[in-house]
Amino acid sequence: MKLFQPLTIRSMTLPNRLVVPAMVTRLSGEDGFVNNDIRDRYMRFAKGGAGLVVLEAMAVHGSRSGPLLRLSGDEFMAGLRDLCAGMHDIGPGRVVPQIIHFLKIARSGWRQKVEDLSIAEIHAIPHAYAAAAERSVRCGFDGVELHMAHAYTLSSFLSRLNRRRDDYGGTLERRLRLPVEVVVAVRAAVGDQYPIGVRFDGEECIKGGYTVAEAQLIAYRLVRAGVDYVSISAGGKFEDAVPRAGEPLYPYTGYSGDRCMPGKSWPDGANRYLPAGIKSFLRKQGVAAPVIATGKINTPELAEEILGAGDADLIGMARPLLADPDWPRKVQAGRFDKVIRCCYANVCKARDERFQTVACFLWPKGSKQAPDSEDIVPPQWDRQLAASTQQGRVSLKWSAATDNEGVYGYDIWRAVGGEKFERIDAIPVPVTTYHDTATIKGLAYRYFVQAYDLAGNRSERSFVVEARVES
Amino acid sequence: MKLFQPLTIRSMTLPNRLVVPAMVTRLSGEDGFVNNDIRDRYMRFAKGGAGLVVLEAMAVHGSRSGPLLRLSGDEFMAGLRDLCAGMHDIGPGRVVPQIIHFLKIARSGWRQKVEDLSIAEIHAIPHAYAAAAERSVRCGFDGVELHMAHAYTLSSFLSRLNRRRDDYGGTLERRLRLPVEVVVAVRAAVGDQYPIGVRFDGEECIKGGYTVAEAQLIAYRLVRAGVDYVSISAGGKFEDAVPRAGEPLYPYTGYSGDRCMPGKSWPDGANRYLPAGIKSFLRKQGVAAPVIATGKINTPELAEEILGAGDADLIGMARPLLADPDWPRKVQAGRFDKVIRCCYANVCKARDERFQTVACFLWPKGSKQAPDSEDIVPPQWDRQLAASTQQGRVSLKWSAATDNEGVYGYDIWRAVGGEKFERIDAIPVPVTTYHDTATIKGLAYRYFVQAYDLAGNRSERSFVVEARVES
Repeated sequence: MKLFQPLTIRSMTLPNRLVVPAMVTRLSGEDGFVNNDIRDRYMRFAKGGAGLVVLEAMAVHGSRSGPLLRLSGDEFMAGLRDLCAGMHDIGPGRVVPQIIHFLKIARSGWRQKVEDLSIAEIHAIPHAYAAAAERSVRCGFDGVELHMAHAYTLSSFLSRLNRRRDDYGGTLERRLRLPVEVVVAVRAAVGDQYPIGVRFDGEECIKGGYTVAEAQLIAYRLVRAGVDYVSISAGGKFEDAVPRAGEPLYPYTGYSGDRCMPGKSWPDGANRYLPAGIKSFLRKQGVAAPVIATGKINTPELAEEILGAGDADLIGMARPLLADPDWPRKVQAGRFDKVIRCCYANVCKARDERFQTVACFLWPKGSKQAPDSEDIVPPQWDRQLAASTQQGRVSLKWSAATDNEGVYGYDIWRAVGGEKFERIDAIPVPVTTYHDTATIKGLAYRYFVQAYDLAGNRSERSFVVEARVES
Repeated sequence: MKLFQPLTIRSMTLPNRLVVPAMVTRLSGEDGFVNNDIRDRYMRFAKGGAGLVVLEAMAVHGSRSGPLLRLSGDEFMAGLRDLCAGMHDIGPGRVVPQIIHFLKIARSGWRQKVEDLSIAEIHAIPHAYAAAAERSVRCGFDGVELHMAHAYTLSSFLSRLNRRRDDYGGTLERRLRLPVEVVVAVRAAVGDQYPIGVRFDGEECIKGGYTVAEAQLIAYRLVRAGVDYVSISAGGKFEDAVPRAGEPLYPYTGYSGDRCMPGKSWPDGANRYLPAGIKSFLRKQGVAAPVIATGKINTPELAEEILGAGDADLIGMARPLLADPDWPRKVQAGRFDKVIRCCYANVCKARDERFQTVACFLWPKGSKQAPDSEDIVPPQWDRQLAASTQQGRVSLKWSAATDNEGVYGYDIWRAVGGEKFERIDAIPVPVTTYHDTATIKGLAYRYFVQAYDLAGNRSERSFVVEARVES
């Protein structure tokens, strides 16, 4: 499989093409230090076998914020160094921190904008990034990733909505000026061989925002300035965030937030045209920097298809690896059938929006981390499944399975018309019902359900039931 | 060319695959009758040779509105019958009206929602559509198109944001209930052989809206209910419209409006994945109904590519045919080089948003219609072009061309890096400067300019200039 071919980026060789993109956890304290929960989360990812784990965004500066890791001073290095060493010990993958600068926001709804920054404030930003990147080297990280995506400072400079009238706004080249200064400063701080990545939006997904047409140029300019890989996100902006009284504006709550983490209603690989467009432009211009695709990529088949088509060089999976950090090693062992599969309910996203610690909806209730079991005994059950239709929907009901360690959940599989079965959802225990509300009259729907345990062992499939809705 | 192959839809044979999608003109009065301006606009489209001209949305009911055609009573038929006959006389194409039901909106910002409608009000809607469709038959139109896109009544029922709790909301099948009732009523009114089309959104492009995954099912359900072709739009919703004090909310002013009519910053064919996804699903389910693609499709090459890839059966061009209604006959004659090309400045869209009559930015100032000239003498000039760079942009300046009938504008062509030249913009006279603000340091940009006259005759190309921006 292409997915398990190594890739070298300057001094760093990734054992495979799977990436854990930076994902907010809210597990750290406001002090910015690594704690046990953070450590457990990332050790789990490392153990799972991903080729590259990007640690969640950590601040390069001292601004107040909610729970957030920091790399803004030497005092934060010990915990990170220790975490990095532990991850290297337990897993085959490489580890890089994502480093971030953000502007101020207030509960009143006020937020600082790039237009508000003085030149002195702007000039401090490359220095802060460079100092944090240099700490990244000293921590033993294999590279460093610069956060230029979503609603944060560098993304807001890149934005087509950057209204500055000086050298840092207006034309595309001027919107790029600060991000390029950051890259140049970071390169000077880390030396020639240290990998520098950038995560940025392939499309802003807001009114008047940039699209892949400019993202191609942004990628090219950043790579020419010294970046070694580009990781492509989308949306996640303040401009369309939904205000909530008494809370600071949160940039993943609007349409652009949906596009950043496409949920159930989106097709698989919804954003792949962004890395595809960017990679194609880079290659035409003779630039070989690897491109990371993300956005609802869940199966080995889709990942292989994207790599095979040349739409990306690396596959980022955030929510799928949150649901099951062992995805890489299970798939490498030919056991995708043992993967606990993300159902894109976006409960993780909703928890983040409510400023709660980020956990997976599928994990056992109250768990702070994904379960870790080596059990090989699958759940047992009587395979009974019943379907009924009412109010334009299909309702399924099945009997509960049993397991030596505990049943974890049920995958729902569906075939529409004469098509093949696809797994459409997952339901955690103890629920044994499912309602399919996206069914239409005139098509036959067939379903089966399959139980899985904490290790991902699957039960036999239930009997297949067929349903037709009436209007 | 595939573009010029005929296509039969029930009793209607289109001579080619080019469609003028329904486009607001604001040329009618509030009385709803056809006037001379409306007549001129559509006669011009008919003469240009498009295979299908869809007349702008006309109301099936009597609600007050701004300038809008109506088909809500027999009194409106004479003007439409006459227009239809005229279009049949002057052009090869077929003609269908788009018929619409909309909810009430007020300058206060209030708008009626689908949740506000009583069952009696809902039941009146299929009757109104059926009566209007039956008038369409009597007017001599070749078919009828039902408006189920954007922010209007049927689209709002289809929406994932439809919050009705009765038979007309909730599940997808119930969201489809009224649209299906409309199709069934219209089919009963027009008979078996009369073509019925539907225009609807392939993606709502708003937070929580549906995506192509449900649009596939919507298309299937509507076709099974009696629809003969589906025309795929995107966005254009109230939910993200930008409020303006003292004006009713207008549904094309937000991000979803950008997606509906993608402007300069968007890649060509930005929405083609929507008809592609829908058509692919229909064909898998054994449904042969033609699918119309729209959204920044401008060149014969792209149109052929879309048809050749099977992503659509028909190509809708709104803004390109507004700019030059003769696009079809010029291209059929092998003279794309004589087409006045839309530059996607979206001045037409901005005029509509300001409730002004819709005209093309490229037309001679004050014109109500596209120019119509058979002149064959191209503009003459000295081919001088100069480039300068400052503030991260490239500025071009050229000497004015002259022409026997009048120079109309200049096409701007650009080659990025070593790539081939692409035409990137058009500048109407008397301007002879252009500023390229999407340029970056590190790439070479080459440009030339070409003048065109009212008939689209091109001058010789200017000399090529090369520029490199500094940051």
